[in-house]
Amino acid sequence: MPKSLTIALDAMGGDRGAEVVIPGADLALIRHPEVRFLLFGDQTIIDPLLEAYPRVKAASEIVHTDVAVAMDAKPSQALRHGRRTSSMWMAIDAVRHGKASLIVSAGNTGALMAMAKVILKTMANIERPAIAAIWPTLQGESVVLDVGATIGADSRQLVDFAVMGEAMARAVFSLERPTVGLLNIGVEEVKGLDEVKEAGRLLRQANLPMKYYGFVEGDDLGKGTVDVVVTEGFSGNIALKTAEGTARQIAEYLRKAMSRSLFSRLGYLFAQGAFKTLKQKMDPRSVNGGVFLGLNGIVIKSHGGTDAKGFASAIDLGVDMARDELIANIAADLETYHAGKSADEAEETEIESRRAQAL
Amino acid sequence: MPKSLTIALDAMGGDRGAEVVIPGADLALIRHPEVRFLLFGDQTIIDPLLEAYPRVKAASEIVHTDVAVAMDAKPSQALRHGRRTSSMWMAIDAVRHGKASLIVSAGNTGALMAMAKVILKTMANIERPAIAAIWPTLQGESVVLDVGATIGADSRQLVDFAVMGEAMARAVFSLERPTVGLLNIGVEEVKGLDEVKEAGRLLRQANLPMKYYGFVEGDDLGKGTVDVVVTEGFSGNIALKTAEGTARQIAEYLRKAMSRSLFSRLGYLFAQGAFKTLKQKMDPRSVNGGVFLGLNGIVIKSHGGTDAKGFASAIDLGVDMARDELIANIAADLETYHAGKSADEAEETEIESRRAQAL
Repeated sequence: MPKSLTIALDAMGGDRGAEVVIPGADLALIRHPEVRFLLFGDQTIIDPLLEAYPRVKAASEIVHTDVAVAMDAKPSQALRHGRRTSSMWMAIDAVRHGKASLIVSAGNTGALMAMAKVILKTMANIERPAIAAIWPTLQGESVVLDVGATIGADSRQLVDFAVMGEAMARAVFSLERPTVGLLNIGVEEVKGLDEVKEAGRLLRQANLPMKYYGFVEGDDLGKGTVDVVVTEGFSGNIALKTAEGTARQIAEYLRKAMSRSLFSRLGYLFAQGAFKTLKQKMDPRSVNGGVFLGLNGIVIKSHGGTDAKGFASAIDLGVDMARDELIANIAADLETYHAGKSADEAEETEIESRRAQAL
Repeated sequence: MPKSLTIALDAMGGDRGAEVVIPGADLALIRHPEVRFLLFGDQTIIDPLLEAYPRVKAASEIVHTDVAVAMDAKPSQALRHGRRTSSMWMAIDAVRHGKASLIVSAGNTGALMAMAKVILKTMANIERPAIAAIWPTLQGESVVLDVGATIGADSRQLVDFAVMGEAMARAVFSLERPTVGLLNIGVEEVKGLDEVKEAGRLLRQANLPMKYYGFVEGDDLGKGTVDVVVTEGFSGNIALKTAEGTARQIAEYLRKAMSRSLFSRLGYLFAQGAFKTLKQKMDPRSVNGGVFLGLNGIVIKSHGGTDAKGFASAIDLGVDMARDELIANIAADLETYHAGKSADEAEETEIESRRAQAL
């Protein structure tokens, strides 16, 4: 049995809070019976639920708090009213104090990021954190980041995102050298953003455990052209939500088309197995969970509106990250990258000075 | 029968050139028998094709040129080698000289935009042109712009895009006051870009024939939350290609699922009608054509890889634009908008001066 692992859960986060978190933890325990939970939240709500889920009860310790961050609170409000006292804050704080290896919350994304930044701080050499999503593709899955942590990114930050995404892809997909692409646009006059072009130049030269592929476009996301797609948070978030919206739109077209006539309904009955497969493929719950990267600790954000199955997927994702020592890997890659860069700079300086002497 | 309308066609544009353009023109003539074509391209290629399409032959005049812009030429190269001599340049030039009401090309997008800017020039009050796409939604269709003409846009340019998109939605969807939304992201700390927020403020105050809705997110595109979605070209292009990629991805999932077992294949047979409906809904050819907005003339860009059916849709779109006097409508709206703005400014100045006197 793998070594025990303690996970901090924000039991109050999400549209339905503990009602989803506790059954979700129960499902996760089936796959990871070695896991232990620290449940942060209102004991009067959690206790009765644990009676119904004895497996979770046996694996958990409750830390009571009656403060919960509202789903629509602004990050600044959440920090003002929930500092030190809210379930979200206390769950993140457990990671900082080494009481838990990671934290999972289905709460307010902005508040979670703001608190995580204050409590865990960004890693050395990382200017800004990113949110990474697992993207289902025709090849399997890819890591896409940033999907909404921050707007805009310069070339250096894009390279940081590439390093973090590459480390995550190695952890989740068990790849040695994931392929990495930069999201760009190809049709117009000036091919793409200057920052993106410069990041491409830096990645081509970098000595990192990845294979830099080059630029990719929006339709490469679904194709699965690369293992890691790097972009800044504005376009990343728009791409993510556009894909989700398109999937729902087509599911709705399909539903309408299949219920239109007796023949199509009969066809639906015959092909039920096929539709079930398709539904599983398109089920957002099976790849639920955004990973906050660039912080000194693993923070997993579950969709706020997810159910127990989706919340369990978010826990699974966190377990993969922790088992693979994601943070240590990112730190090591950053070290390598920056050491390589300094060496290059030193070499350039030497060449410069020789040139100067030769003149 | 509606008044005659002359359309300039770049017969050399697209992956397959005249082989798609001529049959496409033939299909368009069924719906619009009053239309006349000016065909720009290599007569030795066009002539034999016209023998097979007598309807097009009867409705067309050929202007011979043996220069064609390559699909992968850079805009600067295209301008250097194709100025005045290429089928693309000459077709656009026909619009400038009033010989045609619009031009349709399936050629190189960057080159088409570059030439169109040089020949037709941007409209008064418009700093930068945009490419607008028709987006299929659960409600019907929306106009989305800019999908890739230029990267980045300040608040003023976003307002220009809104004015142009609104005029286009009135033309294509026959709406009196289309709803307009600004594409933004909602999850992160700072809710969206400053330019977008400022554009929202300007649109809220503007006296325009539209209903400003507010911000929309990526998943609102497929939902059809608004008639017009406004964004800058980088995220617009990424959204467009991501949606196309997701649609293809799901179609592939569906194809695989339906061919897996005897039962699913039987189901497919029964539900053939339903699948046909779905296929039509998802057929990119039925809404083919990007409209270049902000120029003194109507330019329609067809997908380079489309077939005759898709090219005919692009012609249809152009006919709608010309019949509705799109350019005149945009000009009138811009006039109204800028007059209103000047009045506001004058009023503000007057209030200011009264205040100064009162002190």
